[in-house]
Amino acid sequence: MNGIDPGWLPPEAFRPLGARRVLIRGRSGPLVGTVRGEVVDACGRFGGELVREGAQDLLLELTEGGPGLGDEGFAFARERGTTTVTASGGRGLLYGLFHVVRLGEEAFTGSRPREVHRPAKAVRMLDHWDNVAVHPVMGQVERGYAGGSLFWREGRARGDLERVRAYGRLLAACGINAVSVNNVNVHETEAHLLTDRIGEVAAIAGALRPYGIRTHLSVTFAAPVVLGGLSTADPLEDAVRDWWAQAVRGVYEAIGDFGGFVVKADSEGQPGPFTYGRSHADGANMLAAALAPHGGTVHWRAFVYDHRQDWRDRTTDRARAAHDHFAPLDGEFADNAVLQVKHGPMDFQVREPVSPVLGALPRTRLAVEVQATQEYTGQQRHVCWLGPMWSEVLRFRPEGGAGPSVGESVRELVAVSNVGDDPFWTGHPLAQANLYTFGRLAWRPDADPYTVLDEWIGLTFPSAPERLVRGLRAVLDGSWRTYEKYTAPLGVGFMVQPGHHYGPSVDGYEYSPWGTYHFADRDGVGVDRSAATGTGYAAQYAKPWAEVYESPGTCPDELLLFFHHVPYGHVLRSGRTVIQHIYDTHFEGVEEAEQARRVWAGLADLVEPARHARVAERYEEQVRGAREWRDQVNSYFLRKSGVPDAKGRPIY
Amino acid sequence: MNGIDPGWLPPEAFRPLGARRVLIRGRSGPLVGTVRGEVVDACGRFGGELVREGAQDLLLELTEGGPGLGDEGFAFARERGTTTVTASGGRGLLYGLFHVVRLGEEAFTGSRPREVHRPAKAVRMLDHWDNVAVHPVMGQVERGYAGGSLFWREGRARGDLERVRAYGRLLAACGINAVSVNNVNVHETEAHLLTDRIGEVAAIAGALRPYGIRTHLSVTFAAPVVLGGLSTADPLEDAVRDWWAQAVRGVYEAIGDFGGFVVKADSEGQPGPFTYGRSHADGANMLAAALAPHGGTVHWRAFVYDHRQDWRDRTTDRARAAHDHFAPLDGEFADNAVLQVKHGPMDFQVREPVSPVLGALPRTRLAVEVQATQEYTGQQRHVCWLGPMWSEVLRFRPEGGAGPSVGESVRELVAVSNVGDDPFWTGHPLAQANLYTFGRLAWRPDADPYTVLDEWIGLTFPSAPERLVRGLRAVLDGSWRTYEKYTAPLGVGFMVQPGHHYGPSVDGYEYSPWGTYHFADRDGVGVDRSAATGTGYAAQYAKPWAEVYESPGTCPDELLLFFHHVPYGHVLRSGRTVIQHIYDTHFEGVEEAEQARRVWAGLADLVEPARHARVAERYEEQVRGAREWRDQVNSYFLRKSGVPDAKGRPIY
Repeated sequence: MNGIDPGWLPPEAFRPLGARRVLIRGRSGPLVGTVRGEVVDACGRFGGELVREGAQDLLLELTEGGPGLGDEGFAFARERGTTTVTASGGRGLLYGLFHVVRLGEEAFTGSRPREVHRPAKAVRMLDHWDNVAVHPVMGQVERGYAGGSLFWREGRARGDLERVRAYGRLLAACGINAVSVNNVNVHETEAHLLTDRIGEVAAIAGALRPYGIRTHLSVTFAAPVVLGGLSTADPLEDAVRDWWAQAVRGVYEAIGDFGGFVVKADSEGQPGPFTYGRSHADGANMLAAALAPHGGTVHWRAFVYDHRQDWRDRTTDRARAAHDHFAPLDGEFADNAVLQVKHGPMDFQVREPVSPVLGALPRTRLAVEVQATQEYTGQQRHVCWLGPMWSEVLRFRPEGGAGPSVGESVRELVAVSNVGDDPFWTGHPLAQANLYTFGRLAWRPDADPYTVLDEWIGLTFPSAPERLVRGLRAVLDGSWRTYEKYTAPLGVGFMVQPGHHYGPSVDGYEYSPWGTYHFADRDGVGVDRSAATGTGYAAQYAKPWAEVYESPGTCPDELLLFFHHVPYGHVLRSGRTVIQHIYDTHFEGVEEAEQARRVWAGLADLVEPARHARVAERYEEQVRGAREWRDQVNSYFLRKSGVPDAKGRPIY
Repeated sequence: MNGIDPGWLPPEAFRPLGARRVLIRGRSGPLVGTVRGEVVDACGRFGGELVREGAQDLLLELTEGGPGLGDEGFAFARERGTTTVTASGGRGLLYGLFHVVRLGEEAFTGSRPREVHRPAKAVRMLDHWDNVAVHPVMGQVERGYAGGSLFWREGRARGDLERVRAYGRLLAACGINAVSVNNVNVHETEAHLLTDRIGEVAAIAGALRPYGIRTHLSVTFAAPVVLGGLSTADPLEDAVRDWWAQAVRGVYEAIGDFGGFVVKADSEGQPGPFTYGRSHADGANMLAAALAPHGGTVHWRAFVYDHRQDWRDRTTDRARAAHDHFAPLDGEFADNAVLQVKHGPMDFQVREPVSPVLGALPRTRLAVEVQATQEYTGQQRHVCWLGPMWSEVLRFRPEGGAGPSVGESVRELVAVSNVGDDPFWTGHPLAQANLYTFGRLAWRPDADPYTVLDEWIGLTFPSAPERLVRGLRAVLDGSWRTYEKYTAPLGVGFMVQPGHHYGPSVDGYEYSPWGTYHFADRDGVGVDRSAATGTGYAAQYAKPWAEVYESPGTCPDELLLFFHHVPYGHVLRSGRTVIQHIYDTHFEGVEEAEQARRVWAGLADLVEPARHARVAERYEEQVRGAREWRDQVNSYFLRKSGVPDAKGRPIY
């Protein structure tokens, strides 16, 4: 598309495939049509050929009832000069094709024994927090930093399905197979997507379907009241259940492969089952029952807490809330109800412990939700590649060494999308790496994120010289830890400007109703969440972790202030005091951001001018912002602690 | 008008007048028509009579060329059973009529020698910060807390001139004679009021004219560019001067008695003469020249400062800015240019010193600008009667004991209006007292504000029993000091939530670009503005005040932190330490707010239910808000200072 960045699918990435003779064999269907289109396009560009018989370099074969590949798996092999992708479902064939693209020339070199590739998770989902009507505060996309919505504009569907199709193609190429098309905060206009405006959703679903993507919808729990005119939305009322059953029938008439609902209930002002004295299992199961006959799923978010807390009350702990609410409901959720759990107990801070909910409901289908959109991590004005953070979450073993990892135990991965109608898709061109990495981790949660990053670099910058590859690694690899360094220290979180969440405000959420406090005084800082003397949050973990987190002596440094209130002179496991750590990391973080800016500047000759300029411009803002973070945080703690910087650097 | 509160002109207030025989004598005219209408209406209601000859109780006489009363003055007398109001201009007669209303039965009792009443200031003005188009952040009325605008709604004139007329009547009854009808921040839509949309302004002017009110307009300095298509707005360019001259001719063709322009230039992003390397005198005089042939005036605001300051830089001081910019220009402004100066050097905080600008330009027409709309004083959810604060400003003698007071030396008084389309006009019914008090102080700056408040009580609650009068005094008299107590201590200011400015945030403006800092650290708090060691602001005052403010030992307690950075243990002139003062006043302030709420609750039987309920509901919010202020400010300073409250009260 003109003027739209090709992301990780630039034409050049198709050269190896496009220069070959390709045979597509087996039954046809819409996804095979997609594969064929890709091949024809690539061969037309690079001189290869889609052959109908005879010698071939690449065989793409769809075989009925393949050997346990399922709909999405594929087998890849190369022998005697022919590369073969075999799949038993259309999606598998498409993913196999993109695997060939990823491998590049390597896919056509030497011999390779048969490898089977299957996604570890059946649902790999992106949630869009896109509003249909522009919200007076949140705008077209809630927490969106990449322009408007791909789907909606000022109250209506955009209708530009070419862009949606291009989006679906990018998603398929990193393995995503589900998209929820509207904000979990369902306002008045958006409520109608479920019923009289389902046609607009169906059009989007039609554009995403050729890429193997099922469409989901966020709905309001109050729909029977606000749309159906019922007097109640009580999930145990027959009339309510009937209303939902009928609404769901209408949805499936419009979208035969509809994925299901996403629901934010009893959360931050959204309606939910608590209104009727019912449990979240009651609520979720009612929707699950309506969806089950059609093969749909309800994604029920576990983000439930008291957002009107009294900051004076140190016994209530927002971090505890999801576990307190949902752990007792384990085993009560229907098979097609998925409990969607944020990766940390708070809200997508740059550093949080892994949510104890992820180890607390063994008999419940869990999805872990991460945030690709960088609400608290620089809002796509700062480079912050989140691969290592997500990987840490997925590798975390809630029961300790012997038990399964989060990546093994959860059933699904969900990310809040970072995409909008920006020409670079993600505002910051380098933020595309987050979207790509999420898709690949959802496919294979134990993948090494740095390998995934290299994949993204290889695809996005085909034939990149080594200097460019090294430069991109240099600015991305450590960017999450850099961002952590110059923002909120030691897991303390939420030192952000209220409302829009961009930029520092150390006390911004300190006296608020949101349950987000650091309790800094002249002597120390941090939240005591121990079982012995604090809120007891640490005890929500299984024993090994509960013990580790319980004591400042064993708690990992990077989470110390999340779990403990300590004096500024407390000596970290690193050997530094807390206060000196705050100063040092903030100076280091800025230096690292400045260094990344220099590295990027040095790549000007290797990156196309528009992309280079966009990133360079954002680095100006990142460095400015990092300095602001450094100076505000350091000044705040110097003024409070009175402890001078050991290195005598300027603090105000 | 149905459903609209009559304010200080309830029908009952007209009973004494309306029960009399009234004779109106002398030449006629529009304002005499207004007077006649009032009399006919009152007599129709209360059994009196407008007589054409013969015996009368009240004579309202307009005599050509009266004895030095001017257009606005009147003489009042009573002898031999007849009360006489004499005026030589229509406005004078109207003000005389409202004087009779104010006096009530007293106007018709005994004998009274001839008294002459003349306004001390020729212009007594209200500025409306009303937007025509709803601003995405500021809404219909910038800093408005009383519903929408009386004049504009969603991009257009409302057209409801009956309400505008009723407004003009209220204003005339407290002596206001000028209204500016749009926000000093002139956005794109509003710019057009000057030219192609002047008809909408003319309609408003037509509705206000019968009450002696001239209409003014806020204009953008960039008008020749944005409206006229010129390439410059340089005030010394002939083309620019010609453009303004022609624009002004157009305005006077539409509004023959147009008052003039209000201009916010080179301020908070508004364009101004600095763009062209010209001075503010150049800018103001150009507009003054265009207005002079028609008798118009330009009100040029002195609110000029660097709003992109670096908080790390302690040498730049916003408080200095207006004096630095304007004092050197004394004598350079045209006769019909008025320099409009905020009463304090910052921005309408609950406590500021009087602006040194008010004593620094003896050869310039100055207007003092106060803020009736309670941006920083509770936003009409809290009771905060500002009469005593304004009176302190007006009684301040910039040159010390011998020199004139501000009230004597300034040429005009201007207030930012607190009125909107709310049924009670001002959101909080008791906030009407601020509007009334402003009008009366503009008429007579040395008036005792408590006497004015009693006037307002007497008019608004006619025949109020003593218990109600005492109750109203109890909740209003000290409300400004109560608000000061539970908010920002000792003149420190700006401990408010950024943006909307409601509620506490001690560090909300501490690390901002707005020049608004308190520099609290673990040892002390306050801004050193002394000449010896600080920003030198104190030296902007004439000698007596410069000396008083220079030293913490002589600086008044209530301004200590505005002028000095002191340790928490610093002993105030009151004998308390700064930190104990902070604790004590915050506890006292809340107790006073709670007590006021109790007093108001006890008046339920004496106040009409709708008014009582509205005030009672706002008291709930005021008490909640006061407690929030108390606890946040006290906790902040306890955490920082480590000094416990001497009385052991709860601090968090």
